[in-house]
Amino acid sequence: MSDLPIARRRRRPVAEAPAQGPAVIPAGSPRLARRKRETRIRLLDAAFVLVAKKGMESVTINDITNAADVGFGSFYNYFKSKEGIFTALVEWLFEEFATALDHLASGLSDPAEVIAMSVRHTLLRAYREPVWGQPLIRKGLSTCALSMGLGQRLLRDTLRGISERRFIVADVLICVISVIGTILAGIVAELYPSASSTRTVRTRKVLRSRQEKFAESTAAIVLQAFGLPCIEAEKIARRPLPQSHREATA
Amino acid sequence: MSDLPIARRRRRPVAEAPAQGPAVIPAGSPRLARRKRETRIRLLDAAFVLVAKKGMESVTINDITNAADVGFGSFYNYFKSKEGIFTALVEWLFEEFATALDHLASGLSDPAEVIAMSVRHTLLRAYREPVWGQPLIRKGLSTCALSMGLGQRLLRDTLRGISERRFIVADVLICVISVIGTILAGIVAELYPSASSTRTVRTRKVLRSRQEKFAESTAAIVLQAFGLPCIEAEKIARRPLPQSHREATA
Repeated sequence: MSDLPIARRRRRPVAEAPAQGPAVIPAGSPRLARRKRETRIRLLDAAFVLVAKKGMESVTINDITNAADVGFGSFYNYFKSKEGIFTALVEWLFEEFATALDHLASGLSDPAEVIAMSVRHTLLRAYREPVWGQPLIRKGLSTCALSMGLGQRLLRDTLRGISERRFIVADVLICVISVIGTILAGIVAELYPSASSTRTVRTRKVLRSRQEKFAESTAAIVLQAFGLPCIEAEKIARRPLPQSHREATA
Repeated sequence: MSDLPIARRRRRPVAEAPAQGPAVIPAGSPRLARRKRETRIRLLDAAFVLVAKKGMESVTINDITNAADVGFGSFYNYFKSKEGIFTALVEWLFEEFATALDHLASGLSDPAEVIAMSVRHTLLRAYREPVWGQPLIRKGLSTCALSMGLGQRLLRDTLRGISERRFIVADVLICVISVIGTILAGIVAELYPSASSTRTVRTRKVLRSRQEKFAESTAAIVLQAFGLPCIEAEKIARRPLPQSHREATA
């Protein structure tokens, strides 16, 4: 789980996330507010590490408060339940990811390249961080997918491509729904291959290379659905990813 | 639930389906074998009607055996558990549907039209029969999607379109995975619209018309992913469906 430290390095989004449950910070008390934010971050950080180690089902509130060095009862000042902290955790991870994608996309002028990079990055992160990929599969096909940061971002990038006449699609909403479905199916197909699958992977390097190719092919089919010809879609989807992205998913 | 009688009319696939659990029919006893098949069909028929009425969670084995007029203990000669009979039920419904699609496709010569008809038909059935659509959502993103009848059929039709140079795709597997994801996302988006959605439907007729348009648009984006230009994809996806299909989903 080499990507774990990411959660510890980038703390800003947690501090900015809306408080869960009864953790309303009293106005006019900046010191108390700061302390509350810090405790909330400690709880989320601890939950992230524990979930990555043991899986969501095995982690208890007691585990989290112990690891965060917070009193058991204080937990409920920040989150209503175990489910509440996990929801906040997933929101934070997705938000952080959407911000990272925006940063990477800032160097790209072609909407097709932005979409391809986003699709590949999403698949690769899901493959490499199950603590991130599993909630994406669970949440992705739910009613809230489009209203979440990642869905909104995809809609924005799609609209941009259409307005620049780079994409030719008849129905924007269906198009975005199709991309979400394609990404999720691509994650599931690689993370949980069929029992009848004969593919065997001998080394981590071979696995990574296969996952990269799989992500590229998924990005290519998305670009084709956006109206790009096959050869062009393939070419764009197989371009080297921006360097900082490679580092982020290395 | 106007489509319910379909399950009662077409019984052949059940009789031919492999026996679940310990229901192995002794060789050399055709009368006993026939009686066992008939009892199995009665149990499946009863389960279908009950699930459609009450939902899968609320139905008990006792409900099923009572409705089928079969002794409670005898149930276990046919299925290992409640889950076992539901799995058999879903397999039967999907198999029956795949056979119906093949029948409808026999009158179509263009692979693009076959795919568009199949996508539309799948979405419409899922919208109109939740007892069919819900397991599709649950099973569709699982590891077995591609090995099931519907997945295999999609793969066959895709390969046909490629060999006839009607479809231009670089990776067949990814293409099929993308179609499965698109269909599932299209089902979820319509069956479980976002709470923030402002769409209201006043009449059954308006709802049906909207669902038909949604299914057509989904078929169009699939054809675009297969390499067809937007205008042609739209034209094919909006052609009238074969008459018998309309009747089946009316």
